[in-house]
Amino acid sequence: MSSNAACIFCKIIKGEIPSFKLFESERVLAFMDIQPLARGHALVIPKTHAAKLLDVPDNELEECMPVAKRIAKAIGANDYNILQNNGRLAHQEVDHVHFHVIPKPDAKQGLQIGWPQQKLEMDELKSIFEELKAKM
Amino acid sequence: MSSNAACIFCKIIKGEIPSFKLFESERVLAFMDIQPLARGHALVIPKTHAAKLLDVPDNELEECMPVAKRIAKAIGANDYNILQNNGRLAHQEVDHVHFHVIPKPDAKQGLQIGWPQQKLEMDELKSIFEELKAKM
Ligand SMILES: [Zn+2]
Ligand SMILES: [Zn+2]
Repeated sequence: MSSNAACIFCKIIKGEIPSFKLFESERVLAFMDIQPLARGHALVIPKTHAAKLLDVPDNELEECMPVAKRIAKAIGANDYNILQNNGRLAHQEVDHVHFHVIPKPDAKQGLQIGWPQQKLEMDELKSIFEELKAKM
Repeated sequence: MSSNAACIFCKIIKGEIPSFKLFESERVLAFMDIQPLARGHALVIPKTHAAKLLDVPDNELEECMPVAKRIAKAIGANDYNILQNNGRLAHQEVDHVHFHVIPKPDAKQGLQIGWPQQKLEMDELKSIFEELKAKM
């Protein structure tokens, strides 16, 4: 799998930077986030260096959610978010794909979410759908 | 796989409620979110009725991210978020696990994220890690 010498997560994978490893397989690694939003906040990453979801091989992506599930189970939280950000505008800070597992113990801690729903006519939604469907 | 007669997403899977289906396999279904945060906002769901990530069979979870990737590719956005919410406090509204694929075309549209990082001493992080690691 490809690696990037300047990438902090690739360095963690190679053991050049220490981390608190929760899980490791051939394809993925999970470790504690050192700047957590809540107690137990952890990351699951594919081992291939890829900036965005589109660039990660499917066989690595396949293992990410089962591992996130194991972490969520270990945390034992009732409320939690799984989040993966792509691009600066979407709040990505490290350009190596990572899935956050973030407990939500109360309103103040954990991920803060704003949800600006758009008004959309059904025929407009249908037209977006047809455009996407043709590209799937 | 188990189903819930009152669940809106189970009804969509069974075809009792119409939807704009982007992808369907034995294990997962993807369709347009009818109250999008941005143009192209879609959902990927495992077919088993499960309220939270912990309750979804691994073989269904495995297919969710590869499908989310296909949708992100079809949307063609540079910036986008993958989000899965568990519990009311964590912004979950439908109690059937769903992964949002949300394009982020600009600051106003798409998911709004707040990131309240906590100050944490390394020995405190280590102690949380050891507790989780023992449960993995
Ligand atoms: Zn990397
Ligand atoms: Zn359901």
